[in-house]
Amino acid sequence: MSVRVPTPHSSADSDSPESDRDRLARELAILVDDFNGTITFDDDVIAAHSHDEAPQPTSGRALALVRARSIADVQAVVRFAYEHGIPVVPQGARTGLTGGANAKENCILLSVKSMDRILEISELNQTVTVEPGIVNQDLKGALRPHGLLYPPDPGSVGMSTIGGNIATNAGGMCCVKYGVTRDFVRELKVVLPDGTLTRVGHKTAKGVAGLELAQLFVGSEGTLGVIVEATLRLIPLPPTPLTAVATFASERDAAETVAAYMGAGYRPSMFEMLDGLTISMLNELKDFGLDENVGAMLIMQSDSTTAKEDTEEFTTIADKHNAIDIAFSDNPADNDALVAARRMVHPANELYQRNHGGGQLIEDICIPRSSMADFFDGLAAIRKNTGVVIAAIAHAGDGNTHPALFFDAYDQESCARAQDAFEQIIHLGLSLGGTITGEHGVGDLKSKWLPHELDEGAQNLHLAIKQAVDPDSIMNPGGMYHYLRR
Amino acid sequence: MSVRVPTPHSSADSDSPESDRDRLARELAILVDDFNGTITFDDDVIAAHSHDEAPQPTSGRALALVRARSIADVQAVVRFAYEHGIPVVPQGARTGLTGGANAKENCILLSVKSMDRILEISELNQTVTVEPGIVNQDLKGALRPHGLLYPPDPGSVGMSTIGGNIATNAGGMCCVKYGVTRDFVRELKVVLPDGTLTRVGHKTAKGVAGLELAQLFVGSEGTLGVIVEATLRLIPLPPTPLTAVATFASERDAAETVAAYMGAGYRPSMFEMLDGLTISMLNELKDFGLDENVGAMLIMQSDSTTAKEDTEEFTTIADKHNAIDIAFSDNPADNDALVAARRMVHPANELYQRNHGGGQLIEDICIPRSSMADFFDGLAAIRKNTGVVIAAIAHAGDGNTHPALFFDAYDQESCARAQDAFEQIIHLGLSLGGTITGEHGVGDLKSKWLPHELDEGAQNLHLAIKQAVDPDSIMNPGGMYHYLRR
Repeated sequence: MSVRVPTPHSSADSDSPESDRDRLARELAILVDDFNGTITFDDDVIAAHSHDEAPQPTSGRALALVRARSIADVQAVVRFAYEHGIPVVPQGARTGLTGGANAKENCILLSVKSMDRILEISELNQTVTVEPGIVNQDLKGALRPHGLLYPPDPGSVGMSTIGGNIATNAGGMCCVKYGVTRDFVRELKVVLPDGTLTRVGHKTAKGVAGLELAQLFVGSEGTLGVIVEATLRLIPLPPTPLTAVATFASERDAAETVAAYMGAGYRPSMFEMLDGLTISMLNELKDFGLDENVGAMLIMQSDSTTAKEDTEEFTTIADKHNAIDIAFSDNPADNDALVAARRMVHPANELYQRNHGGGQLIEDICIPRSSMADFFDGLAAIRKNTGVVIAAIAHAGDGNTHPALFFDAYDQESCARAQDAFEQIIHLGLSLGGTITGEHGVGDLKSKWLPHELDEGAQNLHLAIKQAVDPDSIMNPGGMYHYLRR
Repeated sequence: MSVRVPTPHSSADSDSPESDRDRLARELAILVDDFNGTITFDDDVIAAHSHDEAPQPTSGRALALVRARSIADVQAVVRFAYEHGIPVVPQGARTGLTGGANAKENCILLSVKSMDRILEISELNQTVTVEPGIVNQDLKGALRPHGLLYPPDPGSVGMSTIGGNIATNAGGMCCVKYGVTRDFVRELKVVLPDGTLTRVGHKTAKGVAGLELAQLFVGSEGTLGVIVEATLRLIPLPPTPLTAVATFASERDAAETVAAYMGAGYRPSMFEMLDGLTISMLNELKDFGLDENVGAMLIMQSDSTTAKEDTEEFTTIADKHNAIDIAFSDNPADNDALVAARRMVHPANELYQRNHGGGQLIEDICIPRSSMADFFDGLAAIRKNTGVVIAAIAHAGDGNTHPALFFDAYDQESCARAQDAFEQIIHLGLSLGGTITGEHGVGDLKSKWLPHELDEGAQNLHLAIKQAVDPDSIMNPGGMYHYLRR
C-alpha cells in the first residue's frame, strides 16, 4: 500500500483542530491496510481528478483520490465510505460529457482505471470478460487477432474505459447497425453501496433467472454501485466497409434521405450527417477539400456482403432527394480519406471555440428518424431567434443529433443566449418525441431537464429504486436524481 | 359494463354471513362503474383461468376474473386492488410454462388479452406500438405487408401475447441471430401497483435519460406492474432462409459442430438440435422419414445473402465432426419439409407422455455453447443414475437446452425419480456456468432454485427492488421472490 501523508488544505487550517475532512482522510489511510491501490490527499491531484469533460464543470472538494487495483480494494473503500456516510464517486477515464464523474463535496474519488486486465476471451462463446479500467480501443485491439469485435465506439473510444462506457451506456457511430453498449453487456460484477460484491446478469446467450439487474446498472451513471468486472458479447470482425458520401443544399434533404434509406430496409454500419457550418469548421482546421457551400453532407458505410449494392442504392436514394454531389468507392482502401473529416469534427469544433470566445455546449438529442427533418428546421429557427452559432452533426441513422453551440464564455449576455438556445433545443427534441440525451447521459448537465422527459410515475420509480439500492445515498449522489419529484 | 352476478361458492356458504371474498367481489363490481371490460365471478370460468401451461400447476382460489379493454380499465382495477390489499395476477394467453400467471389465493385475475390493437406501425422508424393482448403471430402477419418483422418466436408464437412475451422475456428459435424479446423493446406503458400509469424506456433508437426502466419490466413476470402498451423495434423482413440438416452418432459430435460453426463467425438464423430419442418420438407421431438410429440431428438455417455459402460451410464443419448424413437444399421451397419435424417436437412429446404414464417436466437450461457437449454427457449420466426417460432438444446456437423428462404421474416413485433428475439437471447446468432458465422464466416452477443461481447481494437486490416498486406486494406476489433470503 502506498499512502501520501495528508496535507493541510491551507496554512490557516494547520493550527486549527483537526477538521472532519482531515480526520476521515487519516482514518481512511489507516483503515484500509490490506489495500493494494494508492490513496492520495494531494489537493492538486484531487483537483485534476475532480471533473470530467463536461463544459462548465461544477464540482465539490473531494477528501481523497483512491486508485483501486482489485475488487477487494473497491470493496474496502466502499465499505469504509458506507460506514462513515461518505459519498463515493466512481471514475474511469473521466471522458464523460455531463459531469457524471465530477467530485461531490467531501467525497472519495474512486478510480478503477488501473483495473484494466482482460480476464478471458472465449472464441467459441464470442465473449470477453474484462476489468472495468480497460480502454475501449485497447480491448478492440486485443480482440482483433481473435477475429472478434466489441462494436460500441463512442467518440472517446481511444481514451474511455469499458466501465465508464457501461456506466453511461455509451453509443457511437456503429450503433446504427450494431446497437449500443447495453446490447453487449451479458454479466456484471458490481460492488454495491454497502461494499457487498454481487454478480448480475448472465454469461449465457439467453437467461431469465430473476430480474435483469445487469441492465439496471448499465447507464446508471455510478449511482447504484461500482462496476468491477464485465462479460461482454462480441461479434465476428466484420469486413472492411465501403463508403458513400453525398452533399445536399438543405439539412431537410439530407435528413429525408436518411429516413428513406433506412426505411427501405438497408442496414448501414455507419450513417453520419454533418451540416454546412461543421464542414466549414473542418476546412478551417485542415484542407479536406470539402465543399462548404452546402447545407449538409451524409457519410454512409456498409460492411455487409452486399456493400457494393448498398452504396449504389444509397446514391440512387440520395439522388432522388436532390443530392448535389455523390461519391462512392468500391475500394475499401478509400474509406480513410472519405471518413477522416468526420473523425476530425471534435477538434474542428474546438478550434472554432478557441477562436470565438471559448464557450461550447454540446447537445445530444435523439429523435425518431422520421422527425429529423423537422428537427433541423426547428434548429434553424432557434439559430435565428437566439443568434447563437450552432453547428450540428448527427449519428443520422439513429436520429441522434449533436448540435454544438458556440458562445463567448466571458460575455454574460452571450452565455445567456447560448443557455436559452440549449434549452430550446431540448424542448424541440421532446416535442418531436425525442429524448434529452441519446448517448451522453444525464449527469449534472441535463438533470434539470429530466423531469420534463419522465412522467411522475417514472420519476417516483427512479427515486424508489435509488433508495432501495443505496438507502444512504452515498453512491455518486445527486446527478440524474437531483431535480426529480420527491 | 357487463358484470355477472356473484354466485355463492357452495350451497353451505349461502346461509353464512357475507364472506370477505364475496364482499370484495360485490364492491369490485360496484366500484368500477366507468369500466368497459367484463368481470366474472363464475367459479368454473375462474378455475379455467387459474393456471398457465406449467405442469403440476398449483394455484389459489381467485376472487374474480377481470377482462380489461383499456388502460383506464387496468388502472381502475389495480387501484381498487391496491386500496383493498388484494393481489393482482396479470394474464395474457396463459401459455407460460412456469406457473407465472397462476392464480394466488383471493387474487384478482386481470386479463389484458382483449387489449389487442396495433396502435401504430412506422415504416420509416421501423417500430410498432401495440396493446399487450395481441398474439405474436398476428402481429407478425400485420407487419408482413409493410416488409417488417418482429423476430422473437417462442414455441407459443401462434397463441401467446406480446404482453406475456415481454413479461417473460420470451425467446425462441430466431434468437441465435436476432436476439430475445428484450432486444426489441423500446418503450413500455405500465400500470404500477398503485394504479399509476407510467411510460418507461424510449421510442427512439438511442436514449439514456435516466435509469433504463423498460428493461427492468421485461422479464419481471408481472411482479412489478401491468404492461399495457409497448413500442417495439422491428427489422426488415429477411429473405427466405436456406436449410441444412446433419445427423451424428453422438450428441457430443453435434454439440461440438455447433460450437465450431458459431465460433467460426457464422450467424445462422436458426440452429436447432434434436437428440435420438426425440427423433424416435417424432417418427411415432408421423412418418417424417427420419433416421432414428442416430445420437442427434442438427437443423441449421441461414437467411443471409450468403446463405448458400453458409450452408455449404456448415456441411464441411459437420463432416469434420463425424456427421453420418448431411443434406442441404439451395431451394427455399424445401425448407418446410426439412424443418416440419422440428416444429412437431412438442406434440410428439405429448403423444409419448400420454402413452407412458402422463407425466412430463420440461427443462430450460442455458449454458455457454462451449459447455454444451459436456452438458449432454452429464445428461446421459443422469439418465443412467435415475432411470428417467429424458429426450432433449436445444436452441443449440444459443446453448439453450430443453430436456423433457417423462414419468408415470400416478406412480409416486416414478414422480420422485423425475423430480430428482430435474434437480440434477439444474445443478449440472449451474456447474457448467449456465442458468436455471434460459427463456421460460422462474414463476413457481423454478423459484426454489433461484437462490442457487443468485448470490446473496443479487437476492437482496431483488427483494429491495420488489419492495420499492410494490411495497404492499400486491402485484403477482410470490413467484421468483418466494425462496430468496430476507
